[in-house]
Amino acid sequence: MRENRGKRELRPIEIFPGYLIHPLGSCFVKWGNTWVICSVRQEERVPPFLQGTGKGWITAEYGMLPGSTDIRISRDQHLGGRSQEIRRMIGRSLRGVMDFSLLGERTLRVDCDVIQADGGTRVASVVGGFVALIEALSKLHTRREISSWPLREFLGAVSVGKLGNEFILDLDYSEDSQVEVDMNVVMTESKKCIEIQATGEEAPFSPEELSRMLEIAWEGIEKIISLVKEVTLTLWKGRA
Amino acid sequence: MRENRGKRELRPIEIFPGYLIHPLGSCFVKWGNTWVICSVRQEERVPPFLQGTGKGWITAEYGMLPGSTDIRISRDQHLGGRSQEIRRMIGRSLRGVMDFSLLGERTLRVDCDVIQADGGTRVASVVGGFVALIEALSKLHTRREISSWPLREFLGAVSVGKLGNEFILDLDYSEDSQVEVDMNVVMTESKKCIEIQATGEEAPFSPEELSRMLEIAWEGIEKIISLVKEVTLTLWKGRA
Amino acid sequence: MRENRGKRELRPIEIFPGYLIHPLGSCFVKWGNTWVICSVRQEERVPPFLQGTGKGWITAEYGMLPGSTDIRISRDQHLGGRSQEIRRMIGRSLRGVMDFSLLGERTLRVDCDVIQADGGTRVASVVGGFVALIEALSKLHTRREISSWPLREFLGAVSVGKLGNEFILDLDYSEDSQVEVDMNVVMTESKKCIEIQATGEEAPFSPEELSRMLEIAWEGIEKIISLVKEVTLTLWKGRA
Amino acid sequence: MRENRGKRELRPIEIFPGYLIHPLGSCFVKWGNTWVICSVRQEERVPPFLQGTGKGWITAEYGMLPGSTDIRISRDQHLGGRSQEIRRMIGRSLRGVMDFSLLGERTLRVDCDVIQADGGTRVASVVGGFVALIEALSKLHTRREISSWPLREFLGAVSVGKLGNEFILDLDYSEDSQVEVDMNVVMTESKKCIEIQATGEEAPFSPEELSRMLEIAWEGIEKIISLVKEVTLTLWKGRA
Amino acid sequence: MRENRGKRELRPIEIFPGYLIHPLGSCFVKWGNTWVICSVRQEERVPPFLQGTGKGWITAEYGMLPGSTDIRISRDQHLGGRSQEIRRMIGRSLRGVMDFSLLGERTLRVDCDVIQADGGTRVASVVGGFVALIEALSKLHTRREISSWPLREFLGAVSVGKLGNEFILDLDYSEDSQVEVDMNVVMTESKKCIEIQATGEEAPFSPEELSRMLEIAWEGIEKIISLVKEVTLTLWKGRA
Amino acid sequence: MRENRGKRELRPIEIFPGYLIHPLGSCFVKWGNTWVICSVRQEERVPPFLQGTGKGWITAEYGMLPGSTDIRISRDQHLGGRSQEIRRMIGRSLRGVMDFSLLGERTLRVDCDVIQADGGTRVASVVGGFVALIEALSKLHTRREISSWPLREFLGAVSVGKLGNEFILDLDYSEDSQVEVDMNVVMTESKKCIEIQATGEEAPFSPEELSRMLEIAWEGIEKIISLVKEVTLTLWKGRA
Repeated sequence: MRENRGKRELRPIEIFPGYLIHPLGSCFVKWGNTWVICSVRQEERVPPFLQGTGKGWITAEYGMLPGSTDIRISRDQHLGGRSQEIRRMIGRSLRGVMDFSLLGERTLRVDCDVIQADGGTRVASVVGGFVALIEALSKLHTRREISSWPLREFLGAVSVGKLGNEFILDLDYSEDSQVEVDMNVVMTESKKCIEIQATGEEAPFSPEELSRMLEIAWEGIEKIISLVKEVTLTLWKGRA
Repeated sequence: MRENRGKRELRPIEIFPGYLIHPLGSCFVKWGNTWVICSVRQEERVPPFLQGTGKGWITAEYGMLPGSTDIRISRDQHLGGRSQEIRRMIGRSLRGVMDFSLLGERTLRVDCDVIQADGGTRVASVVGGFVALIEALSKLHTRREISSWPLREFLGAVSVGKLGNEFILDLDYSEDSQVEVDMNVVMTESKKCIEIQATGEEAPFSPEELSRMLEIAWEGIEKIISLVKEVTLTLWKGRA
Repeated sequence: MRENRGKRELRPIEIFPGYLIHPLGSCFVKWGNTWVICSVRQEERVPPFLQGTGKGWITAEYGMLPGSTDIRISRDQHLGGRSQEIRRMIGRSLRGVMDFSLLGERTLRVDCDVIQADGGTRVASVVGGFVALIEALSKLHTRREISSWPLREFLGAVSVGKLGNEFILDLDYSEDSQVEVDMNVVMTESKKCIEIQATGEEAPFSPEELSRMLEIAWEGIEKIISLVKEVTLTLWKGRA
Repeated sequence: MRENRGKRELRPIEIFPGYLIHPLGSCFVKWGNTWVICSVRQEERVPPFLQGTGKGWITAEYGMLPGSTDIRISRDQHLGGRSQEIRRMIGRSLRGVMDFSLLGERTLRVDCDVIQADGGTRVASVVGGFVALIEALSKLHTRREISSWPLREFLGAVSVGKLGNEFILDLDYSEDSQVEVDMNVVMTESKKCIEIQATGEEAPFSPEELSRMLEIAWEGIEKIISLVKEVTLTLWKGRA
Repeated sequence: MRENRGKRELRPIEIFPGYLIHPLGSCFVKWGNTWVICSVRQEERVPPFLQGTGKGWITAEYGMLPGSTDIRISRDQHLGGRSQEIRRMIGRSLRGVMDFSLLGERTLRVDCDVIQADGGTRVASVVGGFVALIEALSKLHTRREISSWPLREFLGAVSVGKLGNEFILDLDYSEDSQVEVDMNVVMTESKKCIEIQATGEEAPFSPEELSRMLEIAWEGIEKIISLVKEVTLTLWKGRA
Repeated sequence: MRENRGKRELRPIEIFPGYLIHPLGSCFVKWGNTWVICSVRQEERVPPFLQGTGKGWITAEYGMLPGSTDIRISRDQHLGGRSQEIRRMIGRSLRGVMDFSLLGERTLRVDCDVIQADGGTRVASVVGGFVALIEALSKLHTRREISSWPLREFLGAVSVGKLGNEFILDLDYSEDSQVEVDMNVVMTESKKCIEIQATGEEAPFSPEELSRMLEIAWEGIEKIISLVKEVTLTLWKGRA
């Protein structure tokens, strides 16, 4: 099916940290024709279960602009099930590399808004949200509002699909609607998984296929992490 | 930590199909102290993308009764992110074993309501929803509203967690809030995966650990499928 | 119309106090095919008009599970008029036997959820809510959070209808939709009325008929109060 | 407590039918300091359960203007429990005197809006809604959209309360907040009850007291029916 | 088009200050067949941006009764765009003549409810809201809650339209739906503009036409201000 | 106050038509630091009052991304008063240059989403929405879904403010919060006004000042129209 791109090849990805003037951190990700704007704000309170613990929190939201897809998106779609599922997945992924005791008792709120959608908006949001988070933490560090760098390692995210007997990396929208198995993976630089979501609604898959897809995902994630490192070179304050 | 139960041991599970008089199918699942009532209704229409295809659909909803947990659950919690995430997962799982061309152009709506919660409500909902679905399809088959049995195979669902260096099966609430990795698995009788959700928000996990957890899940799922088969013996109309 | 039951005969009623593990008090009522789960929680605040008075409050909510009736109930039905009317009636009924100065400045919140509906859900909710309330107060008394027993007396509730020239006690759903006059009565052990709601939308009724219906209701309520006493024998801490 | 009015005396009541130019029927009721505007519209459809039966329906809504009470009323109060309870009571009361087979398959929608509140807004709404309904039916009759007069008889409504050992008729706001028993009664010209709502939340009452309060209500209702007859003399098309 | 009224002639206007007993200030305006009830309440807090400044605020809301127009108005119309636009315009207009440092840190909330609509409801609301505001301030002044009179001058408001080559003052509903240019003007006694809203959606207009319409508006506003002065003679505490 | 820009000078404006791949028309406007994405979709139905007339309609919506301002914008802000007021103003402005009988019975829906806000978002939305509309109509024309060009002329929009005795063109956010008079103007190429909104909440203004501000607005609008013409050169199908 895929003609201009190898089965294990990522779409061209461009990442623009610091895209917006107002938020603490922000990022514009162009991942093929999937474009996402991410921004990070801080709030000086945490959810009730963290109050008084000295620990912070990260929460995420996800939305799509009305003109981002073929069918007009309602302005209330952020209340729908798909958006809620995605924003929870973004939140868990970003929290997975944070040491919250170093953040202090504050919440970082990450907003991911899809300007244009062509498949893979949730993994683009995780990656864009992570870059915006690095910028936000960098500013807090410069302002000495945090003293130690709270990010433990870099992360990346990508989708893998199974179509017939083939596995393909980084699905665009037309591919996404054809594949039988759809998997989203978030992994760290040290090859650990933070979030795995795989669904074989069309055709259930075997544990061996799961392992195979995870390997393919890792190949893509390694490249994405390199790219993230490159664009955040001056912002990342961790480990020397 | 776990004292009265082995690390790979399921809690006692009781399943009561046909629990309610009004719905097409229903089921009461008592899975340890997690109790869920599931019911199935039919609607003679399908979502727009299926109209005119002759194919049917399954959709799910999930709710918790106000008295089901330690903290009172609001009656509007079904709009929240967690409930939305769960109901989508239940829907995908049940759709994963259906041949919709044999169902005809109708929607089956599966409601899962948690009477009492003690961990694992989403996997108990998948299992209870599946039993209620079998009863509903059995009635449609008896009434000759469907002519061929649309379920391809049995399914089961269970959770696995990682705590320190140990993997434990079927987490109750107190365990669920301690584990570092939390995984929910839905698999079919033929050992295929329909849905895998694993999150290492507390401590990312390796691909090898993922494989290990999947094996453990399968041991539990095999037992759950046996139980489901037993209680639906007279209802399942497939392959005969 | 009624074949297996006398005109003044109640349906079989079973009451299970302490049905749930999490709430302060709970109860499962099976009243014929009408099944209701009630639970009670405490909140350490009262409505604004009671703050600083030392007095407590009881508030109620009412809902129906999606599979409880022939037509699927929406998860937002608790906002509709019928549910609102019923929850206010439950609240007033339970407050009618309380001495709030003995409760202290706390709110007890009573949730009544209909698992299965076959007429008379509001009176079953009043009775089930009352039993759950007794369990809740019993625990507060045992924990010495209240020192005197704040319930003044037992209560019961039942419906009566008029069909042609006949009066019938305890209407099930098929009867309820046929009667011309429909009356719900909540009375105390000392034969005092807390709540009377009678409507002759189909055929207005005379003051004499009202008196007659009230007598019939009282016969049923006496039996219900006996049953409530029996199942709460060890919980009721008043006057002994 | 009551100084300028006898215990069985109504407040001064003025009724202005045809108050507004746009609706099919309308009425302004000034009942002491309780002022209510009622209006009636027709809609050429009926609820699903009546479609194809040839029968019509009456539905009611109830609201309070933000400046109608001491505490500012929110514009969303019509969703609250009290408003819902009242609008259902108004609807049942007006339906109780209608022969819907003579109305034809249409819905009359009665809106009751409280301009100023001083107790008894629900009974003022029933009476004002009834007068607006007479005007609406009179216009439909004149336009020959209905051929027979569908109202069976006149109705009236009033409140009664019990304070200490005294019964008092037609409670204003300050009285309403003091009484121990509060009863609202809707009766027809032929002394039949359509709706009885009595609550003894503060102090339960005996069946004998209920009968006594009903007699007192009837004295007031007779006077109110006389007044309604007087102001609708030229509008009422029945029995002639 | 207009037959019984000159092109520059206002409809008959009656203003009743102090119409309601509960609010701090109130007013009933009958402006031809457009009738509006306005009320003012005080709240002892201000929006966040004013806290600690010693300055107060005025906010407005706008609603229409269900029976006020030809088509039934929904009770949720206050959330719609037109109502929101109008309430913001009323708020800005009333704030335009206030010296908030003399009001003190409190909010005055002005509710404008249309009883009957026949064009010009927004200008009638501005004028009625202004009269209710004068009554409210007068009471605060009498009670010595404010020491200096915070209103700088009188204001008036009116609409002007262009139909063909003619300009007409004070449009009723049938005129409003015919005109090509529609303008609403709020001006002070000293002939200063507070709010100008002009729309030529049907036929754009020239700057010269704008000036001409403004002159015509001023002629009407002068008369309205005279009327407002007359009915608030004893309430206005400004200038000696 | 203004240092790097003359009082009558516009901020640098860049307009990118055809920015998105999915919508019928789209545009990205960068107006200083105010950035707006506009998109247009068609719907094959019109509001009820136009059904069967052969005429079309334009409707607009307006939103701000959560990261677009200093304070985080809620995802439900589109329901608030300010957003509603702006979307109505955008709709009226665009409708003001359309000949709807040439559009046919369809609705064009214009979404304006603010990516970054620095004052003047509503005029940037009108201009960006207009360019997106030209692209949408151009495509409809090319596909022969419309045969004649329905836009009557070009339009532009700008803000003007008064600060002390000075008038300044095109306010950025810091200026907008200081000015005493704030005016938004939408005018056509032939120097006709479609929409004027001027508010002197802080300091009322004279009719002469209004005329002066209108002249200054026109100077800016002429330049904006030139820019719009330039970027839509190949899209505009009118008069040729």
